[in-house]
Amino acid sequence: MIELADFLQAQRRIRPYIHYTRLIQSDYLSELTGGEVWLKLENQQPTGSFKVRGALNKLSQLSEAEKAQGFVAASAGNHALGVAHAAASLGLGQVDIFVPETAPEAKVNKLRRFPVNLHLAGQTYEDAHQAAADFASQTGALEISAYDDLDVITGQGTVGVEILMNLPACQQIIVPVGGGGLIAGVATAVRHIKPLCHIVGVQPEASPAAQLSFAQDRAIDPYDHAPTIADGLAGGFGVRPFEQLRHNPPDIVLVSEADIRRAILALLAEHQLVIEPSGAAAIAPLLTGQVDVRGKTAVCILTGGNLAMGLLREIVTQLPNH
Amino acid sequence: MIELADFLQAQRRIRPYIHYTRLIQSDYLSELTGGEVWLKLENQQPTGSFKVRGALNKLSQLSEAEKAQGFVAASAGNHALGVAHAAASLGLGQVDIFVPETAPEAKVNKLRRFPVNLHLAGQTYEDAHQAAADFASQTGALEISAYDDLDVITGQGTVGVEILMNLPACQQIIVPVGGGGLIAGVATAVRHIKPLCHIVGVQPEASPAAQLSFAQDRAIDPYDHAPTIADGLAGGFGVRPFEQLRHNPPDIVLVSEADIRRAILALLAEHQLVIEPSGAAAIAPLLTGQVDVRGKTAVCILTGGNLAMGLLREIVTQLPNH
Repeated sequence: MIELADFLQAQRRIRPYIHYTRLIQSDYLSELTGGEVWLKLENQQPTGSFKVRGALNKLSQLSEAEKAQGFVAASAGNHALGVAHAAASLGLGQVDIFVPETAPEAKVNKLRRFPVNLHLAGQTYEDAHQAAADFASQTGALEISAYDDLDVITGQGTVGVEILMNLPACQQIIVPVGGGGLIAGVATAVRHIKPLCHIVGVQPEASPAAQLSFAQDRAIDPYDHAPTIADGLAGGFGVRPFEQLRHNPPDIVLVSEADIRRAILALLAEHQLVIEPSGAAAIAPLLTGQVDVRGKTAVCILTGGNLAMGLLREIVTQLPNH
Repeated sequence: MIELADFLQAQRRIRPYIHYTRLIQSDYLSELTGGEVWLKLENQQPTGSFKVRGALNKLSQLSEAEKAQGFVAASAGNHALGVAHAAASLGLGQVDIFVPETAPEAKVNKLRRFPVNLHLAGQTYEDAHQAAADFASQTGALEISAYDDLDVITGQGTVGVEILMNLPACQQIIVPVGGGGLIAGVATAVRHIKPLCHIVGVQPEASPAAQLSFAQDRAIDPYDHAPTIADGLAGGFGVRPFEQLRHNPPDIVLVSEADIRRAILALLAEHQLVIEPSGAAAIAPLLTGQVDVRGKTAVCILTGGNLAMGLLREIVTQLPNH
């Protein structure tokens, strides 16, 4: 298991390059749920998502030999941005990024501003991942996993450390779950500091790989998911995240596509926050009542804000009476 | 003229109750203009706008006798929120707020969460202001002006101090202008610290009261404005703001309704920021080229984020090809 000292070291290592993001109380969600609900604004990170934490923790620990070989990353967008930002921050060159052609324009537009070689490959994350793996084996470049890497997991876990530093009274943390890097890092870090703080993971019904992995006691990756607007949460649950969590699995709740859309709209209307589907997923189970935080102090991690304008348009027009 | 020491005292006085808001570089606007453009995110204040600064600076200096009489404020929304938040922060009771029936729901919904007596009065800011003045003369409550008050102006000026503390290289600050509290405070504070820093005010074409006031060398307040989506910038330019600026008037540029809409959309699409029309106005003259910041370091003050969902819907649907 990753040690507390590792998380604290990671925090110090990445601190110069990231924001200590704001934790704000949500009057809206507090009134709705009868709890004290806070929002951790990881959408305020330089690239618009928490992924920059893991990428920085990984890239800043590479050997000179590894750095000379170059890097490659596959991503639905936010991990790619994290790697690009980390490489630029650390002055590392030779970055190749593979992104599916279906990646949100908001993310691709931001990627184009970085000095990276951008490859649009296939329709899904799995396609892009395969292309990146092929590239890595042909060129010797190091593939930076979005979640299946202990240094990446440790970097993501610094979110949990920050939450407890800001709000020691926190009793529950609600975390969107995709490949598992964030929840593995946050749960492990938080359980070192405050073992009774309850961790809840949220997945789209379309891609319940974490829930299935814990039920079957094996990491299911890749996972052949149904379509979901939460591109960052689609796909398999990684082996290393699974290993961190298998002896004390977090609760996992599944939310529908409609509930994720409602969550995006609620954050827009009540907090004027632009949050992408994967990030908004964290508040969806509070809106539906699937997670009960009555009388508790709870934090939802809003993991990212790179919402495509087309989806924003759909959401504000199709749900007029939120 | 308000002294630098007054601004620094105000800054210390209000600091416990406000956020030191983030100043972020806009890659998008920098590339577009050939300058180095930064955005001051006053939408991140507790009430969603900078108005809380002036309200706090005013209310925290009242005598016990004044506090006992109660307060009244008229506002298109943000000043009311500022006064409500300031009163709650300082533990003051008896707050009556007059808001026009046309005020954006986003602001009215937030107001309802505060322990204030909320009165919806008339169709325009002038109507609400008249109702508040009548109430003040009947009850003896103190009216807290949104802009025509030196303590309020001084509080708003702390935005300028923060900008220069964060970004001493700043050469130009672009400020939305309504009643004039913000531009009078910012210009006065900034000229104390860095006299060569250029101040530019932005008004909607529908309500050019500041431009007319400087042209005619007299404060025009009230002003019978045309309709504008920038409710916070509509109406007259105050006597006290005018007096602070008359000997060295800032440049004032006028922007169209369509340009303000484009500015809102650009901030959404490029920065995932929800900014209300009055706040987005600050970037409109960069989009149109009316203000040239090529080769300069410039800051646009995004004054607030309380954008009505109806307007957001209109903007994202009516301008598909931004």
